[in-house]
Amino acid sequence: MMEKIVSLCKRRGFVYPASEIYGGINGFWDYGPLGVLLKNNIRNAWWRAMVECPPIGPDGHPIEMVGLDSSIIQHPRTWEASGHVGGFADPMSTCRQCKKLFRSDHVADMLREAEWVKSLAEGLGLDESGAGAVDIGRLRQWADRKAKKVAPGLALVRAFVPTLAAIEAALAGTPSPGLTPLLALVAAAPPPAAPCPACGGDLTEPRAFNLMFESHAGAIQDDANKVYLRPETAQGIFLNYKNVLDTSRVKVPFGVAQIGKSFRNEVTPRNFIFRSREFEQMEMEWFCHPDEARTWYEFWKHERMRWWLSLGVSSENLRFREHDPDELSHYSKMTVDIEYRYPFTAPDFGELEGIAHRGSFDLTQHQTHSGQKLDYFDQELQLKLKAEGRPDDEIKAKSRYIPNVIEPASGLTRAVLLLLCEGYAEDASRASPVYLRFDAKMAPIKCGIFPLVNKDGLPEIAEKLYLELRGRHACEYDAKQSIGKRYARMDEIGTPFCVTIDGQTREDQTVTLRERDTAAQERVAIDRIPALLAERLG
Amino acid sequence: MMEKIVSLCKRRGFVYPASEIYGGINGFWDYGPLGVLLKNNIRNAWWRAMVECPPIGPDGHPIEMVGLDSSIIQHPRTWEASGHVGGFADPMSTCRQCKKLFRSDHVADMLREAEWVKSLAEGLGLDESGAGAVDIGRLRQWADRKAKKVAPGLALVRAFVPTLAAIEAALAGTPSPGLTPLLALVAAAPPPAAPCPACGGDLTEPRAFNLMFESHAGAIQDDANKVYLRPETAQGIFLNYKNVLDTSRVKVPFGVAQIGKSFRNEVTPRNFIFRSREFEQMEMEWFCHPDEARTWYEFWKHERMRWWLSLGVSSENLRFREHDPDELSHYSKMTVDIEYRYPFTAPDFGELEGIAHRGSFDLTQHQTHSGQKLDYFDQELQLKLKAEGRPDDEIKAKSRYIPNVIEPASGLTRAVLLLLCEGYAEDASRASPVYLRFDAKMAPIKCGIFPLVNKDGLPEIAEKLYLELRGRHACEYDAKQSIGKRYARMDEIGTPFCVTIDGQTREDQTVTLRERDTAAQERVAIDRIPALLAERLG
Repeated sequence: MMEKIVSLCKRRGFVYPASEIYGGINGFWDYGPLGVLLKNNIRNAWWRAMVECPPIGPDGHPIEMVGLDSSIIQHPRTWEASGHVGGFADPMSTCRQCKKLFRSDHVADMLREAEWVKSLAEGLGLDESGAGAVDIGRLRQWADRKAKKVAPGLALVRAFVPTLAAIEAALAGTPSPGLTPLLALVAAAPPPAAPCPACGGDLTEPRAFNLMFESHAGAIQDDANKVYLRPETAQGIFLNYKNVLDTSRVKVPFGVAQIGKSFRNEVTPRNFIFRSREFEQMEMEWFCHPDEARTWYEFWKHERMRWWLSLGVSSENLRFREHDPDELSHYSKMTVDIEYRYPFTAPDFGELEGIAHRGSFDLTQHQTHSGQKLDYFDQELQLKLKAEGRPDDEIKAKSRYIPNVIEPASGLTRAVLLLLCEGYAEDASRASPVYLRFDAKMAPIKCGIFPLVNKDGLPEIAEKLYLELRGRHACEYDAKQSIGKRYARMDEIGTPFCVTIDGQTREDQTVTLRERDTAAQERVAIDRIPALLAERLG
Repeated sequence: MMEKIVSLCKRRGFVYPASEIYGGINGFWDYGPLGVLLKNNIRNAWWRAMVECPPIGPDGHPIEMVGLDSSIIQHPRTWEASGHVGGFADPMSTCRQCKKLFRSDHVADMLREAEWVKSLAEGLGLDESGAGAVDIGRLRQWADRKAKKVAPGLALVRAFVPTLAAIEAALAGTPSPGLTPLLALVAAAPPPAAPCPACGGDLTEPRAFNLMFESHAGAIQDDANKVYLRPETAQGIFLNYKNVLDTSRVKVPFGVAQIGKSFRNEVTPRNFIFRSREFEQMEMEWFCHPDEARTWYEFWKHERMRWWLSLGVSSENLRFREHDPDELSHYSKMTVDIEYRYPFTAPDFGELEGIAHRGSFDLTQHQTHSGQKLDYFDQELQLKLKAEGRPDDEIKAKSRYIPNVIEPASGLTRAVLLLLCEGYAEDASRASPVYLRFDAKMAPIKCGIFPLVNKDGLPEIAEKLYLELRGRHACEYDAKQSIGKRYARMDEIGTPFCVTIDGQTREDQTVTLRERDTAAQERVAIDRIPALLAERLG
């Protein structure tokens, strides 16, 4: 199903591979005319739910939230404080023979799919799992005929005589070793080392490979000028926590919301726009009193789920997954993921948004690394505790603190994927056998406006209606092709309504209003269209 | 005046220096709670004028325009084709003594301001322009006492005896050489070489310094993986020209509009957010028949000026400036700038937007470098020419072509600066002696909503009004401080309206509506406020 979605995205202008005319560039995607509209709709909905109309808090009053747009490139010490310079890394191994690079934790999976491993199992007559006795004669034959071509880096090829002798000795006691031990033998690589999935050669020990893109700001490319493309927008918020407190009218608890691009030099970008090297995030940091962090964690967990449902995503395809203590990131006290059933994970679920209780980790780190005081004096709490007659020590201890942070962090580009997957539907009986059932709010185009034929005064009527509507809803005017083809195209791009102007329109001022999901058509007065659309689009 | 604007921007949360807690990072800025709202208002206005409601074309019908959001990192060959790898460079010189870097074309200006040059002129008793006779005794004294400290790299310091001898010889005939020849003598650097503005040392020959930020995509940092951060959004549009044609319903002429970040590794970022290393652009590429390019150039020139005026910018502060043929970029046939009178250029003007006739340069370059056909077959033109009975040769020649491009390109972050400069006003008689006279459409906050006191049931009434209004206009609720201070703050951030709920509100359901520019207050019924605001905000 993913292949069909990727193909539809390309065909209709949602998402193109970046630099396609130059053969593409792995892990980068461009958002076409419809993709950018869909992305903007999601961005605007998030911004509205966070910054313009944030939810009512547990006390019945609207919470305080402001927006921010910080730079992608920040001072490099930012990433030392955040832990990204030291820790934000994947383990990587290189093949000493063919020089290819692999994520060390992917090698076992890749070996199961490797061409030379399949060839070896076939040559020895083993079954798929590698079970069965190894015949030395057949192994010798395979090494001689096939292996030179499919696994030139293999020890059995590079050092035939001693390797074969060692294998014979080892097989004497266990003629049916199973696949992994067999691979260790032919590669002369005792576990946990494993051979190269590409050529069978020796892999280096895993080394940490940092996921941040590096660059240099200023004319000289030396370490003093090294900078990083941000791997998350969150740190830009922490850097400005004090600026926001000092220059706006917010008080703890409050939130700072930001939408923007981030970059991760993924070793294996995959699953279309799910994991790309350049992507867009929607992150909010909620600063609160440590004693209230648990309450706010629960608050945001449910608010965020409510928001995803409000985009028209089915509750059956969404779920919470609390992280076990041993899988928590170094900064997190507790984390819950909102997961979605993607086509490439189904029937299982995959990550959509993380809501993390980050404690005071980030502000403490930046306080330490910058030497700037980032604690907060909570005057209102002080007055409240005084009024309650609490002891001075307690008042002092409780009313000055480094705020705790609850962070709902999601991907804007991943949300685009979500809506495409959620909307994708097949129905062979329709003019377009696939179509997109976007929630009307999220649809890139809300209404197609068509003159039935491109003459007889119909285009003039249609264009007038188009000009009247386009300021309120995203509309598309199209005068060409058969009306069936035009409807089919609108179905395929998820347009909820179409209006067709025909010969009858000139006589009685009525038009055809067509609805996407049911394909139902009704005849309505043309001057009722603006009000009808406003009502049905919400 | 710029200093005051920069200070207001920081103080009220429009623009912060990026990574300020780490001492900042030269050329990068963060947009605070109000800055991001102002920026979004400009972005949305541009997107609306380009993509949602593009102008009516010269033929009386709406033109065709779609949006795009392409990747910041593209295939590196993109920048070979565009000319950025070869040509997008500033000439730079390094000092052989102190190792500092200078833009070669800035050195002459910098020398006039250099500390050691001033010290030299003072030591010799020359006037500001360097006129006057040079006394060898005083020069010897200056070299001995001052120069060692202020100009340790100077030849006269490093090689005192031979340099002084050469100076004596040269001065024998011309005792009053003037400043530039004198500098050449003390630095032993015959023109056009000039000494280092920082230490007087020897500068290297100018070398081209490329303005693109470099990085690497993939695990290995070698030349094969080198990528660039885009220095302009335009190329992302050219890369997708064919995709857009193939997958949407546009036909030539049509436009593709894009808003997004770009990066230029400026040697000397300056003038606040006017020239920063990370910035945001709004660019549109208009693809048209070569014979019509001149007409569209004029069309967009005037449309774009009209748009800037629609943001409330005074026509006195805007002007056109056509580029002379000898200052045109390599790709451009003609270019006109829309210029603005910035505080740092006044009474002169500086660049705001460029409208360039790029001919077929970009598509031709990408066609050559990618090997993909990027020409266009204009079926409608073919039919029209046939109907006119034109000869087959002419029809064939005219109806297949590489489109010409007209590009209106402006900076979103520069537009933020423009509105701040344009809005900035001083009036010592007001509660806030400075305030921002934004056009109401562009103001980050449209309405402040205040209970006069934070008790007696007033906050409840105010909060209810706030919740009713905030979905339609950006509103701020504030219950603290004296009402005068709250009005003053709203003036300073450019909020056009304030509504105050007081004791009388509970009796007769009226509130005070205050207008920013006049500070006039009127008493109106609270239930008329939504309609009044809707009307006055347009």
